Amino acid sequence: MTITKSETPDETEIHVLIDDWAKALRNKDAEAIVSHYAAHSVMFVMAPPLQYTADNSAGKNGIEEWFATWDGPIGYEIRDVKITASDDVAFSHSLNRMNGTKTDGEKVDMWLRETLCFRKVSGQWKITHQHESVPFYMDGSFKAAVDLKP
Amino acid sequence: MTITKSETPDETEIHVLIDDWAKALRNKDAEAIVSHYAAHSVMFVMAPPLQYTADNSAGKNGIEEWFATWDGPIGYEIRDVKITASDDVAFSHSLNRMNGTKTDGEKVDMWLRETLCFRKVSGQWKITHQHESVPFYMDGSFKAAVDLKP
Repeated sequence: MTITKSETPDETEIHVLIDDWAKALRNKDAEAIVSHYAAHSVMFVMAPPLQYTADNSAGKNGIEEWFATWDGPIGYEIRDVKITASDDVAFSHSLNRMNGTKTDGEKVDMWLRETLCFRKVSGQWKITHQHESVPFYMDGSFKAAVDLKP
Repeated sequence: MTITKSETPDETEIHVLIDDWAKALRNKDAEAIVSHYAAHSVMFVMAPPLQYTADNSAGKNGIEEWFATWDGPIGYEIRDVKITASDDVAFSHSLNRMNGTKTDGEKVDMWLRETLCFRKVSGQWKITHQHESVPFYMDGSFKAAVDLKP
């Protein structure tokens, strides 16, 4: 992690949280991932549906099922992270690279856009909203643009 | 607009901003749209690239070009809006419906996920980050899921 000097203490706390969250993804540690979310968080993710609300136990099961679709390690890297925090509300955005091999042999190596929104709950920053996506091609194919690079 | 009683004054200000932004879209009023953005805002939108930084004048030109691709009115409706605000940092998420006819005759009627992130700048809330997307189908087609309904 590189903490820029202009970060406030709250922004640094969130930076540490994001790095820990990415490390938990790389380690396939669903419990560590879920520990960073509020009890109920509104999720906009890459797969349908449009939105769902995750509670921690259902979230953990979903993440473990998703981990089981990967054969071996998941690579996860974050760049262009920008964090904006007040005392108790914050947001971040970044470009995240995810790569590895799925159990069906599919090779994945894609960049996605990540927006995380936070509240401080009992003195701890927690994710209350997550939005991750790729754009899609406006050429009539409607194909998800999973081949873009920053 | 229906303002729920639990909104703080800052949350109500943002609610009014979002409704005004949607009205400006329906009215194809690029200047009114741009007035709600900070001088530089980081955009994750439905078309590639992954991200870009919009300044207000370039943003206005881009919006006007996009308006010119629509034949007649643009329908724009927002639901499930949830706003979280502190004194100077805030975020919102919602499901937005966009419909109308493009100049090439294509009928559009789609729901998208919208996350807006705000800072209070000289006493006025401004959008500093926007993330809008649809999910894509994980069935091997990689098709953008433009047919989902909430």
